[in-house]
Amino acid sequence: MKRSDFGRRSSYFLAAVALVAAASWLSAQQTPRIRGFSVASSAAETVRERELKAMPTAKAAEADFDVMTAEPHHTGSPYEIKLADYVADQFKQMGIASTKYEYSVLLPWPKERRIEIVAPDQMKLQVEEEKIRGDQWADKPGILPAYNAYSPSGDVTAEIVYVNFGVPADYETLDKLGISVKGKIVLVRYGGSWRGIKPKVAAEHGAIACLIYSDPHEDGYFQGDVYPDGPFRGAGMIQRGSVMDMPRYPGDPSTPGRPSKPGVERLPMDKIETFSPIPVQPMSYRDGVELLKRLKGPTAPESWRGSLPITYRIGPGPAKVHVNLQMDYGQRRLINVVGKITGAVAPDEWVIVGSHRDAWTFGASDSVSGHVSMMAVARAMSAMMKKGWQPRRSVLFISWDGEEQGLLGSTEFVEDLTAELKAKVAVYVNRDAGAGGLNFSSSAVHSLTPFVHELAQSIQPESGGKTLYDGWLERSREQAPAATTPPVGALGSGSDYTAFLDHVGIPSMDMGLNGRGGDGSYHSTYDNPTWFKKYIDPQFTFSVLASQTTGVALLRLADAEVLPFDYESYGRQILEYIAEIEQQATKASADGAKRVNFAGLRAAAEAFTKAGADVRARGESLLGGAGSNPADPFAEINHRLMMAERDLIEPAGLPDRPWYRHVVYAPGLYTGYGVKTIPGVREAVDSGNYTRAAEQATVVIRALQRATKTLWP
Amino acid sequence: MKRSDFGRRSSYFLAAVALVAAASWLSAQQTPRIRGFSVASSAAETVRERELKAMPTAKAAEADFDVMTAEPHHTGSPYEIKLADYVADQFKQMGIASTKYEYSVLLPWPKERRIEIVAPDQMKLQVEEEKIRGDQWADKPGILPAYNAYSPSGDVTAEIVYVNFGVPADYETLDKLGISVKGKIVLVRYGGSWRGIKPKVAAEHGAIACLIYSDPHEDGYFQGDVYPDGPFRGAGMIQRGSVMDMPRYPGDPSTPGRPSKPGVERLPMDKIETFSPIPVQPMSYRDGVELLKRLKGPTAPESWRGSLPITYRIGPGPAKVHVNLQMDYGQRRLINVVGKITGAVAPDEWVIVGSHRDAWTFGASDSVSGHVSMMAVARAMSAMMKKGWQPRRSVLFISWDGEEQGLLGSTEFVEDLTAELKAKVAVYVNRDAGAGGLNFSSSAVHSLTPFVHELAQSIQPESGGKTLYDGWLERSREQAPAATTPPVGALGSGSDYTAFLDHVGIPSMDMGLNGRGGDGSYHSTYDNPTWFKKYIDPQFTFSVLASQTTGVALLRLADAEVLPFDYESYGRQILEYIAEIEQQATKASADGAKRVNFAGLRAAAEAFTKAGADVRARGESLLGGAGSNPADPFAEINHRLMMAERDLIEPAGLPDRPWYRHVVYAPGLYTGYGVKTIPGVREAVDSGNYTRAAEQATVVIRALQRATKTLWP
Repeated sequence: MKRSDFGRRSSYFLAAVALVAAASWLSAQQTPRIRGFSVASSAAETVRERELKAMPTAKAAEADFDVMTAEPHHTGSPYEIKLADYVADQFKQMGIASTKYEYSVLLPWPKERRIEIVAPDQMKLQVEEEKIRGDQWADKPGILPAYNAYSPSGDVTAEIVYVNFGVPADYETLDKLGISVKGKIVLVRYGGSWRGIKPKVAAEHGAIACLIYSDPHEDGYFQGDVYPDGPFRGAGMIQRGSVMDMPRYPGDPSTPGRPSKPGVERLPMDKIETFSPIPVQPMSYRDGVELLKRLKGPTAPESWRGSLPITYRIGPGPAKVHVNLQMDYGQRRLINVVGKITGAVAPDEWVIVGSHRDAWTFGASDSVSGHVSMMAVARAMSAMMKKGWQPRRSVLFISWDGEEQGLLGSTEFVEDLTAELKAKVAVYVNRDAGAGGLNFSSSAVHSLTPFVHELAQSIQPESGGKTLYDGWLERSREQAPAATTPPVGALGSGSDYTAFLDHVGIPSMDMGLNGRGGDGSYHSTYDNPTWFKKYIDPQFTFSVLASQTTGVALLRLADAEVLPFDYESYGRQILEYIAEIEQQATKASADGAKRVNFAGLRAAAEAFTKAGADVRARGESLLGGAGSNPADPFAEINHRLMMAERDLIEPAGLPDRPWYRHVVYAPGLYTGYGVKTIPGVREAVDSGNYTRAAEQATVVIRALQRATKTLWP
Repeated sequence: MKRSDFGRRSSYFLAAVALVAAASWLSAQQTPRIRGFSVASSAAETVRERELKAMPTAKAAEADFDVMTAEPHHTGSPYEIKLADYVADQFKQMGIASTKYEYSVLLPWPKERRIEIVAPDQMKLQVEEEKIRGDQWADKPGILPAYNAYSPSGDVTAEIVYVNFGVPADYETLDKLGISVKGKIVLVRYGGSWRGIKPKVAAEHGAIACLIYSDPHEDGYFQGDVYPDGPFRGAGMIQRGSVMDMPRYPGDPSTPGRPSKPGVERLPMDKIETFSPIPVQPMSYRDGVELLKRLKGPTAPESWRGSLPITYRIGPGPAKVHVNLQMDYGQRRLINVVGKITGAVAPDEWVIVGSHRDAWTFGASDSVSGHVSMMAVARAMSAMMKKGWQPRRSVLFISWDGEEQGLLGSTEFVEDLTAELKAKVAVYVNRDAGAGGLNFSSSAVHSLTPFVHELAQSIQPESGGKTLYDGWLERSREQAPAATTPPVGALGSGSDYTAFLDHVGIPSMDMGLNGRGGDGSYHSTYDNPTWFKKYIDPQFTFSVLASQTTGVALLRLADAEVLPFDYESYGRQILEYIAEIEQQATKASADGAKRVNFAGLRAAAEAFTKAGADVRARGESLLGGAGSNPADPFAEINHRLMMAERDLIEPAGLPDRPWYRHVVYAPGLYTGYGVKTIPGVREAVDSGNYTRAAEQATVVIRALQRATKTLWP
């Protein structure tokens, strides 16, 4: 290597070699170590990251975005099928091998939707989204009308009761007021829970239908100017969405635990448990206010009142409504597209990134913005491969279909390839909507907390400015002034990591970069290119930033000699959860709490934490002494780090929902997207069932003991 | 006494004698002791209270109410002068001697009020209240237009900045956002502070005018149905009110510390310190929304947003407004009417009850509802006197004028009769608005806390139901679940007890009975008989209840052998205040806190508390052994109990506001109605002035020592 070449970075390879040399010359203290990398490989990784960060361009992002958002592309629609070819073709152009995984899923489309006020006066409500002047997208043919997927058909007439967000606590308030929803239609506002919880809880209390409206308090004028004057939800915009009982199991409702492929056993319609129990229809606040202003009865409690210029009352009635919803339940084509770069050293350790391609309408933000950043990383890695790089592990890029209706694509895929994924996947990285601002956030298995912190520290959006981590910490401190690190959330549900983590035990992470107003057109016709380019990412700078962030994450996960999983951090978090649950149980019933082996849980979690520290020290020592070992001196430790998470799977699953099998994470039965950690024990304590809590504690102890043994045999 | 007479209660007197005899026969344990009464006199008091409670009738209340609300009767108006005669005449009919105390006060009435938007478009705003169809009262001649009393005249044009409630914390938020109000007109919403604070703080930050609107979040549709469909404030209803700098001194601004009588020295206009520093005008939300929707700039923080169907923005501008306010400052007639029943045993111990007669318009709730209940008590006592009863102490009923503009009537009266009041008044009981529901609340000097609790326990609104105390405690527990007693508040300012307590040191209490919506037409044209009879007290049952509660309070205060003041309770509360201030000071500046003699404060308050316990024990012993003593064996202890409160007056007054002289209570300089306890020390600590805090601590210590010596020489 000539010295004159040194500064020129004529090729990736030479520069990396040069820097490795430079790094050797510097002391270890002076070189920033990257988690999971040795000193030497950290230096190389730093160069690679710099190179990768320079590759995504706004122009390429916009070109990809324009294709992806050109037509409505809900699952099963002609354009969604066409986009599968487009994505496969993109992979081909990049030189990345790709495969399509096709399934046939049970999916309802709306036929008839009719809602009319029949008392105290007569009025037909709109059930379509308003066509806003100056936005040509609403005129496109093929837009799926506003509906809630997996509502049953139904034709009912009854008085209205307003039930706020429709969560269990709201029904406790109604009980105190002596108001029953039995035989009534509930009117509920979006927010406060995942939407699927609303009809579920309403039905449990005897309601016969559920109407969900978007109050301007949550995403309308209370938050900011509404479209077309700003990014927020206007009077006639409607939020579509699934009301499948996802906390029971996600995916095709007719094939729980099995892939929806030809010949698979399918449940008959009347045996399916994840349909909404009662008809559900979403509406705009233009319609919602017509119902609310026709309610009498007690004034709603202060926390129930939104931002409409009316007095919020509960009813029942006098507003009485006729709801007729007819759904067309059919089998639809669902196509996932998988691109794969094979790893050089550990081809059977897979790092997967996935983003959903399907959308309710145009999906500019949800999730084309995320999908574009995933494809930009594939393009960057393809370019790096042309210059000689190959990842240590295999990297898979997956374009999911059917996410919106209930994580159909990812669930069927995981159910299809369970054995292989269980054996090979090191980590699943999810990219849903989220290239709309500088606000970084993440949820992940707690072994990845330090990794996510370091990732955010390594991304600097503006030259010389703050890192993503700095802004994230600042925002955390607005909520909790004493915070020393920003919070990495626990994974609940609501996106495509669910089957990977909760069904198979694959370490997973989700992340997003958001800004103000990015949710303003959520699941509406107006999540379209005009809205997005006017208000969310006009210069595609956030898209480039999201690509850089996703790229650095994948590069580190794919190239680290030792997987950057910190099970000590995981264990400490589990100890906190145990303390929380014990405290809650003791408060609710001292006798009940005594029946649960909290001491055993603590001991198991402490042993797990200790094993996590030991395995991390072992990894460090391996990284320090690398060089004189066999081809992959890290294979054994990486296998342990991958498989410890699998041990947290209880084969029998959670009580009453066997599809969910992780002992630490599950979506709450009554929170939906919201996580319940150590769900078997926690939900039993929540419901005062201490016999079950005691049994579940035993299950968790055994899982922790298995994982401890895997980590540090 | 014949036995056959025993059950007949042929006259009050005989029944009382009979019950006293019965009480002597029963053991002390079985007879409920009333605070300040011996066993025997408790029994007699119980009979008297039962008799008094039976006297007020809904019919008499409504008749009095109808006269009082027949015409607009603001201070200086023809009907207010006529009502002084009416009240005096009522006293005459009751056989109660009455005297008028007339003053001539400086009082502005509005001449010209013109507000017009001049940019980004042109629009003239309403400055009058809307005339609501179906309510004939708004058509009455003589209604004082909507204005803020003691605004200066002014003619300015500038851009608008929205400043939320306009309290100091809101300007800290503006500073963080880099927005200045210098040279601007602030738009502020009612609520969050006394209104007079809003222009004061705005001016301190450089604003040149202040517009105050009523957001529907505070008292409009967000709270409930609006008039005429419900009691709450409609789009066109305006809240009038004073913006005098009352925390500096109340009363006639031109005669601080002196009565506004002929020949008194009056300050020239330019030397008066309690005028608002900038022009101020109140408006409805019909007008407020026109300004708000013309603002751009940052979206207001969430806590700044009200319930209007718009996005709240801060500005400045582009809304630009021309404000022209011309006031007619003149001398107006103010007439207090005092009725007096002379005491039988202690005629020079005065128990005073006062309620204001003047109103912004009709004053149905504020404060005719309170005035009616005061007059009902006078009528009941007059009837009892005809049957032979005479109170132990003198009872004075005062119909105040000029309360609304700044406590003018009560302040001039107290400044007029300072020496006599100081020598004679045992207690001042205030009745402002507050006969509109079952929700009892009270603020009082802390020596009266146990008395107020027992008062509320003795009033039972519905047969066999809960007492006022029970409902009060229930409501307290909604706020503070662990509360063992309901809170008796500290007295700030905002009604006619201010001069009695804060200027002279007379033990005072205020109380009210309120319900939902009672403030919905506060200071508007619609605080009128139609609104009141439709929504607040249609059957005048709350009026009767308020008369009973006021009556029992006065009867107990007038007849108790020993004044029911508990200085031990007072002392304990003072110790809590000292601890609060010390904690705050230590947190803000450990060094500063060390300079303040908190140990000395604590020691003085502990000695005061101990003396309070000793004097109470002495009272109990006197009550137990009464009988063989001179004419009034309680004269000396009652004198001590009255005068100990006077000792808490510091003759030099508080720093920068010498009119306020009580060392424990004052309205906060930046809270207005809200109290600051131990204000000399607390406000010095608030502002980081530890030299002053140290000086003020010495003042408080000396006052507590004086009072301790008075209580227990």
